[in-house]
Amino acid sequence: MDTKTLHVDAGAGYDIIIEPGILDRAGRHIKGALPRAKRLFVITDSNVSPLYGPRLVASLEIESFEVHTHVIPAGEASKSAARLVDLWEWMTAHGITRTDAVVALGGGVVGDLAGFAASTVLRGVDMVQIPTTLLSQVDSSVGGKTAIDLDTGKNLAGTFCQPRLVLMDPETLNSLPEADFMSGMAEVIKYGCIWDRDFFDFLAVRPDRHALMADITHILYTCCDIKRRVVNEDEHDTGLRMILNFGHTLGHAYELAGNYTAWSHGQAVAAGMVTAARLGVELSVTDADVPEKIEKILTPLGLPTRIDCGFEYIERAVGIDKKSAGDTVTLILLEKLGAVRPLRLPKEDVLALLAKMTGR
Amino acid sequence: MDTKTLHVDAGAGYDIIIEPGILDRAGRHIKGALPRAKRLFVITDSNVSPLYGPRLVASLEIESFEVHTHVIPAGEASKSAARLVDLWEWMTAHGITRTDAVVALGGGVVGDLAGFAASTVLRGVDMVQIPTTLLSQVDSSVGGKTAIDLDTGKNLAGTFCQPRLVLMDPETLNSLPEADFMSGMAEVIKYGCIWDRDFFDFLAVRPDRHALMADITHILYTCCDIKRRVVNEDEHDTGLRMILNFGHTLGHAYELAGNYTAWSHGQAVAAGMVTAARLGVELSVTDADVPEKIEKILTPLGLPTRIDCGFEYIERAVGIDKKSAGDTVTLILLEKLGAVRPLRLPKEDVLALLAKMTGR
Repeated sequence: MDTKTLHVDAGAGYDIIIEPGILDRAGRHIKGALPRAKRLFVITDSNVSPLYGPRLVASLEIESFEVHTHVIPAGEASKSAARLVDLWEWMTAHGITRTDAVVALGGGVVGDLAGFAASTVLRGVDMVQIPTTLLSQVDSSVGGKTAIDLDTGKNLAGTFCQPRLVLMDPETLNSLPEADFMSGMAEVIKYGCIWDRDFFDFLAVRPDRHALMADITHILYTCCDIKRRVVNEDEHDTGLRMILNFGHTLGHAYELAGNYTAWSHGQAVAAGMVTAARLGVELSVTDADVPEKIEKILTPLGLPTRIDCGFEYIERAVGIDKKSAGDTVTLILLEKLGAVRPLRLPKEDVLALLAKMTGR
Repeated sequence: MDTKTLHVDAGAGYDIIIEPGILDRAGRHIKGALPRAKRLFVITDSNVSPLYGPRLVASLEIESFEVHTHVIPAGEASKSAARLVDLWEWMTAHGITRTDAVVALGGGVVGDLAGFAASTVLRGVDMVQIPTTLLSQVDSSVGGKTAIDLDTGKNLAGTFCQPRLVLMDPETLNSLPEADFMSGMAEVIKYGCIWDRDFFDFLAVRPDRHALMADITHILYTCCDIKRRVVNEDEHDTGLRMILNFGHTLGHAYELAGNYTAWSHGQAVAAGMVTAARLGVELSVTDADVPEKIEKILTPLGLPTRIDCGFEYIERAVGIDKKSAGDTVTLILLEKLGAVRPLRLPKEDVLALLAKMTGR
């Protein structure tokens, strides 16, 4: 079987197992990782539940777990304080104890919300992540960040909380809409940009979903391995981990400008990476050919390379961004493909340069 | 000046400074502990704010901090999910960054709520605790537990989060109502019971508030020192820390039975300690004279030694208690005054014994 396993040293330490069809064997793996758990609280969403919920629950019940399931509406709107409180009340009403566990089955919204709930109910119970989207498999299920959105902005409340086990079934990607698959690809390409030129080139010669899916286990493994190395060195996001935000500050501006509906996270990050590369060229940090190379890998996948956006959104993203400390901002720039270079600059200088680049 | 300082090794490590009048010097201490903070978010309640808010804010502004203040209604009802969300929205609307900090000025409700908010906004900012009640000074400001109440029960959601600094001004106790002072004394006496026979005897010959206040710095120091030793060895509450729950499982039953209004936390713990001591005698774990000695120290302080309560509340407290793992419960018993002994028993056996003791 095409199985890959990584061990992550963060938190208590945990395995990421990537294996086609692992959904039907989830119960056995969870039993092995959490021998004291009796009750499992499965949190999933209205898209994923009908597709994969019954198979997961069957594999858990065969191992004699007492299984409770909560289905949230699919979509970012569920990453709310109101849903978080619902989950707290639901788990405690069903008698959760400290040795029980939460199982998150779904994409990033489910993982972020369920992770926040798991890390705070009874001041923290164990969590198993079963990410079902490309974005969540390569990004949000590794690294131990959880969050909800507030009225004031996205991901503004949350915790650092490592899962006890991550199970990835690449077959779940077959049901993913094209746009969501490609949104995930933007993050996949990001790993090549910041860390691994060979991986970037590997992706560049696989310019469609069919070709990518033929090597999906390798792709998932490579992304998780890079993220693991970064997170291992910076569990609480005070230094190295910021390189994972390549393309994200500008991406946030584009998401804000489109009110989080016009552009997906991946689309915004795609265009954000190109703009960050151009910014790096302006600052004489980045090799001159990098922006074009990134554009060339994005275009066949249908990902945007530029997004027009009011300057006020760029100001807001630079200002409120959680990476900011005081009046400076740390730009994540590339020296060349595969080599990243964080650069701290006064916010004013960054905004002036961006204004010039966008002709304002 | 009558100053005592303890260093706690949990989290990043922090100092507890006990000093009369320290409220007026809070800004200087916070500046020293958190040199990168620019904005301070003071969270206090409607009782404490008029008494001590202006002095604290003045001492912060003299150090050039940008100070924002949020006043919650006094009382347990504020330890709610709705208030937590208010605080998240308030801090992010005022541009909090990761290097800013929260200052909790008040009793346990303020500390628990503000601590939860601080440990989750932007996935965690620094926190300074300035406890103003006896209970919060000896208990909830040390140990790094935060919480809110849910519809399903008290303290069912929260985090483990160590403060960066704790400032205690014993003079704030002068404004504390008699009942609240004595409620705090129940926890003070608990430390003598579980850890320090000499301290128990020291308290026994100070049977009124005046005598206790004459030695309050020593009393605060001793309690915090004991809690520090326990927490240092068990930051995440998986073992030794459970000894701090002496009297608390039964106390929870009494609080539940009185719907959290008939009996204060301290009153419930006082009676809970006596019942736990009697339970220990029944189980041949506790010396026969211990229950009477505990009664004798409580009575002059006006604390109850017995509380009548429906057996269903005892069942509920034993069953839902967060210390419970599966079908057993760990009783915190005394061998003698100053020496504690946890004992794990099947829940059924504990309930049967309690039923017998209460004549049911």
